[in-house]
Amino acid sequence: MRFKRSERIVYMTQYLLKHPNELVPLTYFVNHFGQAKSSISEDIQIIKETFQAERLGIIETTAGASGGVTYRPKMYREEAVELIEHLCGLLKEKERLLPGGYLFMSDLVGNPKLLNQVGELIATMYMDEELDAIVTIATKGISLANAVAKVLNLPVVVIRKDNKVTEGSTVSINYVSGSSRKIETMVLSKRTLSEYSNVLIVDDFMRAGGSINGVINLMNEFKATVKGVSVLVESKEVKHRLIEDYTSLVRLSDVDEYNQQFSVEEGNCLKRFN
Amino acid sequence: MRFKRSERIVYMTQYLLKHPNELVPLTYFVNHFGQAKSSISEDIQIIKETFQAERLGIIETTAGASGGVTYRPKMYREEAVELIEHLCGLLKEKERLLPGGYLFMSDLVGNPKLLNQVGELIATMYMDEELDAIVTIATKGISLANAVAKVLNLPVVVIRKDNKVTEGSTVSINYVSGSSRKIETMVLSKRTLSEYSNVLIVDDFMRAGGSINGVINLMNEFKATVKGVSVLVESKEVKHRLIEDYTSLVRLSDVDEYNQQFSVEEGNCLKRFN
Repeated sequence: MRFKRSERIVYMTQYLLKHPNELVPLTYFVNHFGQAKSSISEDIQIIKETFQAERLGIIETTAGASGGVTYRPKMYREEAVELIEHLCGLLKEKERLLPGGYLFMSDLVGNPKLLNQVGELIATMYMDEELDAIVTIATKGISLANAVAKVLNLPVVVIRKDNKVTEGSTVSINYVSGSSRKIETMVLSKRTLSEYSNVLIVDDFMRAGGSINGVINLMNEFKATVKGVSVLVESKEVKHRLIEDYTSLVRLSDVDEYNQQFSVEEGNCLKRFN
Repeated sequence: MRFKRSERIVYMTQYLLKHPNELVPLTYFVNHFGQAKSSISEDIQIIKETFQAERLGIIETTAGASGGVTYRPKMYREEAVELIEHLCGLLKEKERLLPGGYLFMSDLVGNPKLLNQVGELIATMYMDEELDAIVTIATKGISLANAVAKVLNLPVVVIRKDNKVTEGSTVSINYVSGSSRKIETMVLSKRTLSEYSNVLIVDDFMRAGGSINGVINLMNEFKATVKGVSVLVESKEVKHRLIEDYTSLVRLSDVDEYNQQFSVEEGNCLKRFN
């Protein structure tokens, strides 16, 4: 069976989309279609140029015997701006304010389309770091971490606040919650993270940064290097923040529980999109 | 600017892949390319035929003024068989057995590529149901539920075993854990699920089915209809199972904690692939 160029392009485009940040050897497509390498290279050139012209992400080609093609998803500034405006609009809804100055966000974190976009945004900011894993805290951070990990083609490592039998042997630390000043415990299964990993920490909400500080301490136990911290929402109502270097998509401020009022504005992440 | 057919096909293929189970109006592509509807229809026909010939899922086209195109991801039997064999191979590793007859699975549930495939398999079994949401239990089920929800383009609803302030007002039920016979509580935020929804329940592990039975009771409180139950691993070591109608990918049996032995075989889900 002979394939037309247009058919090969359909197949190759969907394959690359389904394998983000994975080097696909040219020989894979050569064998699949029984076609000369030169034709496959031309196909890839068309895909590459279209991705570039239409700003659909990056198609990277590497030459040589071990050569191949990698699809690197990327969010562009205008998309990031639009997404953050959209998020701010959603988070502004008055009914979201909960006792203690929290925001109800379960519906956002449960929306797969929105999650995909947020994942792509966060992944774009850290796409040039050499990462080994995305680390998050149960439960709210898990969906977000999955969305980032899918784009970057990396495993997700989930830290828990309780010790469950299903984790096997674990390492745990105690930490002081930044806002409530309570002592809490964090637990990570030994098998889920290799020593000396480079990690990105992702979470849904950061106030003083006590939990994330706990994660960083726990990462020290695993001799891991924290390459970045990214949160969906940060709360500005903090006198002394424990974490200095982080990115946030949205910033919450002026929380007035009594009158059910608060402000929502873009976080600091757009600085990374230029 | 004029687009060549091959360029249009790259764009349209990636757009459809990024919007599974979503009706994209033909006019979207017509406007994007400033091209006649007839050309766009021909492009879609090429994509459709390639997806069919290469078994990449279904491209559904609907005619008429509100006509459009929908990409419906689908896993085929041979892929499902291969995936389940792969899962069985991974789960057979001796070191996975934990006290209490549990299996260590955090690494699998944290692997985004594997998760995507498992999500596609489960989504395929329920693709013809009219679903409104994917329901799961924190924490292990969340990643799996996200993977299924992404394919089906549906929200994820997470039931918790603790009541957190970040959930707002909640509905809770008590249930008896099937294996340990302990009384436990399950909590769901009122806002995350509308009444009369059709739901698919997804979880990572089922023994007697006590938790899932609890979920079904909680769903009754929301007047929801449970259209299906799907688990990654079921344990066969059960005299009286509380749930009869479910699908499982893998079945665990003959657990001998003392000698660190157990068996792993395919679950019942392949019956749905013919």
